[in-house]
This record gives sequence, structure tokens and C-alpha cells, in this order.
Amino acid sequence: MAKKEIVAGIDIGGTNTIFGFVDRSGTILAEDRLRTNHYEEIEVYVATLYEKIVVASHKIREDINIIGFGIGAPMGNINKGTIEHAAGLPWKGIVPLGEIFQRHTTLPVVVTNDANAAAVGEMIYGGARGMKNFVVITLGTGLGSGFVIDGKLVYGHDGFAGEIGHTAIRPGPSNRDCGCGRKGCLETYVSATGLKRSLLKIMADSIEPSELRSYSFDELDAEIIHNAAKKGDYLAKRAFEHTGRMLGFKLADVVAHTNPEAIFLFGGLALAKDLIFEPAQKYMEENLLSIYKGKVKLLPSELSTQNAAVLGASSLIWTLKESKS
Amino acid sequence: MAKKEIVAGIDIGGTNTIFGFVDRSGTILAEDRLRTNHYEEIEVYVATLYEKIVVASHKIREDINIIGFGIGAPMGNINKGTIEHAAGLPWKGIVPLGEIFQRHTTLPVVVTNDANAAAVGEMIYGGARGMKNFVVITLGTGLGSGFVIDGKLVYGHDGFAGEIGHTAIRPGPSNRDCGCGRKGCLETYVSATGLKRSLLKIMADSIEPSELRSYSFDELDAEIIHNAAKKGDYLAKRAFEHTGRMLGFKLADVVAHTNPEAIFLFGGLALAKDLIFEPAQKYMEENLLSIYKGKVKLLPSELSTQNAAVLGASSLIWTLKESKS
Repeated sequence: MAKKEIVAGIDIGGTNTIFGFVDRSGTILAEDRLRTNHYEEIEVYVATLYEKIVVASHKIREDINIIGFGIGAPMGNINKGTIEHAAGLPWKGIVPLGEIFQRHTTLPVVVTNDANAAAVGEMIYGGARGMKNFVVITLGTGLGSGFVIDGKLVYGHDGFAGEIGHTAIRPGPSNRDCGCGRKGCLETYVSATGLKRSLLKIMADSIEPSELRSYSFDELDAEIIHNAAKKGDYLAKRAFEHTGRMLGFKLADVVAHTNPEAIFLFGGLALAKDLIFEPAQKYMEENLLSIYKGKVKLLPSELSTQNAAVLGASSLIWTLKESKS
Repeated sequence: MAKKEIVAGIDIGGTNTIFGFVDRSGTILAEDRLRTNHYEEIEVYVATLYEKIVVASHKIREDINIIGFGIGAPMGNINKGTIEHAAGLPWKGIVPLGEIFQRHTTLPVVVTNDANAAAVGEMIYGGARGMKNFVVITLGTGLGSGFVIDGKLVYGHDGFAGEIGHTAIRPGPSNRDCGCGRKGCLETYVSATGLKRSLLKIMADSIEPSELRSYSFDELDAEIIHNAAKKGDYLAKRAFEHTGRMLGFKLADVVAHTNPEAIFLFGGLALAKDLIFEPAQKYMEENLLSIYKGKVKLLPSELSTQNAAVLGASSLIWTLKESKS
């Protein structure tokens, strides 16, 4: 029997890197991960990642044939195979990720923005099936976005479309510092990190008691704040409300650019459901121009949290293969 | 000899409506105009416009055959032939412009956003020839925008993409009222009207002498302020600087959405050249994420001020004709 063709889909996030072995139908045969932020040297990171992929592939019981590596990463550039000035990653400047990865293999390696990969995943396997115009917002350590227009992912002239995490929500010198070197970017408010920052600000301004006062900034994460909010913690609920409000406000701008049918929220923060969706929906509607009001759906991704990016990354290789044959 | 096929291209602006008779090569055989804001009744406006077009067509010496009417209007919707909630026009709510116009003729009538029409005009006849990804910003009484991605105009799911004039530059209840019913929209700062508003604010805050202090708000227009600035008037120069700064700040956001190769400025304010381009370029670059810095061209439209919209509007009919034959 012929070996089963498989793509390794790799999703590089600020905290974790997740990879999976994906077949043509979108089934993930196996998955593993490593900590992105444990590797300061990109060469060491890539060598470790490649090694882990090889080891994991040997554990799969089916007879498989890996045909390529699809990589989604913040600021990943499909034209050049680079990661450029990714604020949330340990490697600064322009990183030739594709080239370094290619030292380990002769198989095709394709790099793109992690949010673009998620958007393709949503279109092929998720809630955007059949939609021609939609946006995916990924809420992780940072905030990414992927725009689909007329059924095609928008790359833009230089391959960097959809970086709305770095549009200003509040311009001005007294604003939150962003890892990109500027101030007041959307992702300083709307992301797991942004949620933590808002919580600390609210904690500083308020005298409400909260179990979260016993956590350090480093210890806090979106899940801890989410769990506290579910138990009714006032500060946690206010932090989510603030985050959703900032998101909703910006989504009204996004709609005025490309007039999508739907906006999908994807990633850790989106799992907080109503805590984030309610204020986001409310403030989006409040800020929409009347021609758009009530027309744009705000939806949770229909893909499991991490899989969309892995699936999306893998789809790049299937697309490549099928365009050549 | 066969009659020459001609399209009537109509550009509806907040102040003036301009129409022209355009042949397939983009030559405008004749042009005329009427005052948009003199007509409170849409039916009277359309009847007068149609009458004027017929009269003007009879003055053309060539033997012509009008094959359709292409109309560009603020908030014009190509799917429904409507104008919807256009802040700068005298008619409120949803106006069935195409339907009313069609009462006068059996020829095809196509309605679209005036800025979308300008973008098509720029692509076919202007500085965007050969470009696949660009944005046109129209600076008139209000601010419009048209996005071209992968060589195609973006309409969006409901036909309303590209309304960045109504994205917030400064959110908040104490901000400038916009004709759309909200506050702090980009066009309350960046448009001929926005320039006047900024001038008045600066005039109120400053004690600098200025010839502009002798004009009422109603008397002022962009041309008067432009002429004063050219003569060195301090308040006029500051008003342009402020307008350009707000524009540049927002253009950095536009780039983060669709990563265009170029942004074209079109319309009355763009004629002020360096007065608007210098601050816009400076603040756009300052606010761009590093991956975009130095890569996006900010250019004046290569079409004469009003012609692009007329040409763009006319091109809708040529496209329609050629898709049918």
C-alpha cells in the first residue's frame, strides 16, 4: 500500500510552538510542542524543533510520507520565508527562518503569518467554509489578524497584510509600551498579555479585594484571570470587560476597511466566551457606521484552539503541491 | 460611420455633482456640473441632473450613442443601487438612487461609492496602472477610500468596503460631531470641512493675527485656507499641518490592514501638495510598524481633480458591457 502523504504544520507562538502531522482531509495524526521562549538562538530553536518533529513522526503507527513543512509565525513573510521584527518572539530583527529550517531538509518549507494560517484553516475546515469575505483575529500572547477577500487570503504588496495588532488604539506618548517599539498598539490591550496589563491597572486603581492580588505579574495568565472571573471576581470581570471594549472599538474600524461578513475570534482569550464576546459585540455595534450595524457576525472559531493554526500552516503545503501538479 | 459609444460618468459630491461623456479610451468629450446641495428632494435632483445631461449631450458635435450611466456617490452601494446614510449629502436614510434614475432611462445605470469609482479611474487611467495593491483616499467635503487588492476593487460582503472616513481618529464623548451621528471620525479632521474646523479651533486658541479672521465659517473653504497658507499665514499653515498629521496617523493603520504598495491622495485637499503631503508622510512613517517603514509610497493622484471619479464611474458601464459581450 502507498504511504500516506502528510504535512507537518507548525504554529510558532510567543510562548509555545505546536506542531502536528496533518493528512489531506485535515485529520491531525499526532501533535507535540516545545517552549518557544526557551530558545534565544534561532539556530538552536530550529534544530530542536526539527529533531522533535522527526522523533514524533517515528511514533506514528501508520506508514507516512512527509511531503513538506508549513510554518505559521508572527510576522512571518510568505514572499521571503522570514520572520521580521516579531515583538512577541525571542529573536529580534529579520530572521531567515525558512532558510535555517531548510538546512535540515530538502522538502518544501513555507512560512507565513500565524494569523493568516489560522484564517486559511478557518476557511478550509472551520466556520468560514463557504464565506468569501471574513476576518480571523487570533488572541494569544499577542494579537494577529488574517483577512480573506473574495475567497482569497490577502497578503498585500510586501506579504505583510493583516497586522492590526499594531494599529494604535490610543495614540500618544503616555500610552502603553508595545514590544514593537511603539506605544498604544491594539495588542497591548487585546491579548493575553494585554488582559494582564489591564488587570494590574484596575487592581492599582481599585480597593476591591481579589484572590488575584496574591499573584505576581509573571505568575498571572489568561486562564487564571478567566477562572477568577467565572467565580465572580470583580477585578477579573472588569479586566475582561475592558479588553472586550477595546477589541469591539477596533473591530468597528476593521469593518469600515473591508466590510466582512463575519469576524472570527480565535485563541486562548476567545475561550472566555461571553466574558470577551459580550463587550466586544456591544462596543463594536456601538461604534459601527449605521450601514454596517447588525450585519457583521462576531463568532468563535470553530476549530480547536491550537489546531487551526497547525491546519492552516499545513494547508500552505497542500496548496503548493496542488498548484504544481 | 457608426456612432461613437459614450458613457455618462457622474460624480456626486457633497457640494457639486460633476458629469462627463467618456469614450472607451478615457477621453472626456464634454463636462458639466450642478450644485448637489441645492436639491433637498432627491427626485427633483435626479430629474434636473438627467435633464442637464441630455442638454449637454446635444451640444457635443460628434455623433454619439450613450450606452449607460455610471454614478459614483458617497455611500453608494453597487449591489442595491442605493445611497445609504451619506453624511455629506442632503438626502437622509436609504435613497434608491439607481431606481429613481432608472425612471428616466432604459439604459443601464450603475451606482457605486465615489471613492471606489476614483480608485478604478486611478487603476485604468492614472498612477496606479500596473499596480495590484493600492488605496485611493478622496479628500473632498468628506473623506472616502477605495481599496484595490490583487488587481480588484474590494466591495466587501455588503458592498460597503472602504469607509475609512468613518473610522475613529479620536474616540470619546467630547470629540468632534460627525454627520454620520457618531463622534471623532477621521473625516471630521481630514477633509475640506475638517480643515476648516481645525482652523477655527487653532484660531480660537491662538492670538496670532491672520487675514482668515475676517472670514465666517460659511465663507471659508479649502482654497481660501490654501491660498493663505501659501502666503505664509501662520494659522492656515498650522491647520494644514494638523490635518496632515491626523491623515498620516490613520494611514499607518490602513497600511497595517492591507499592506498596499501605494496610497494615492485625490481631490481638493491633495492639490495643496507639500502642505498636506509633508506632514502626512512624516506622521505615517513615524507610526508605521517597522516592517512597513519606507516601503509605502504616498502619491498624488495622476488624474485631474474631478476627472478620476467621472472616469471611474464611467468605467463601471464599460466593465458591465464587456462582461456581457
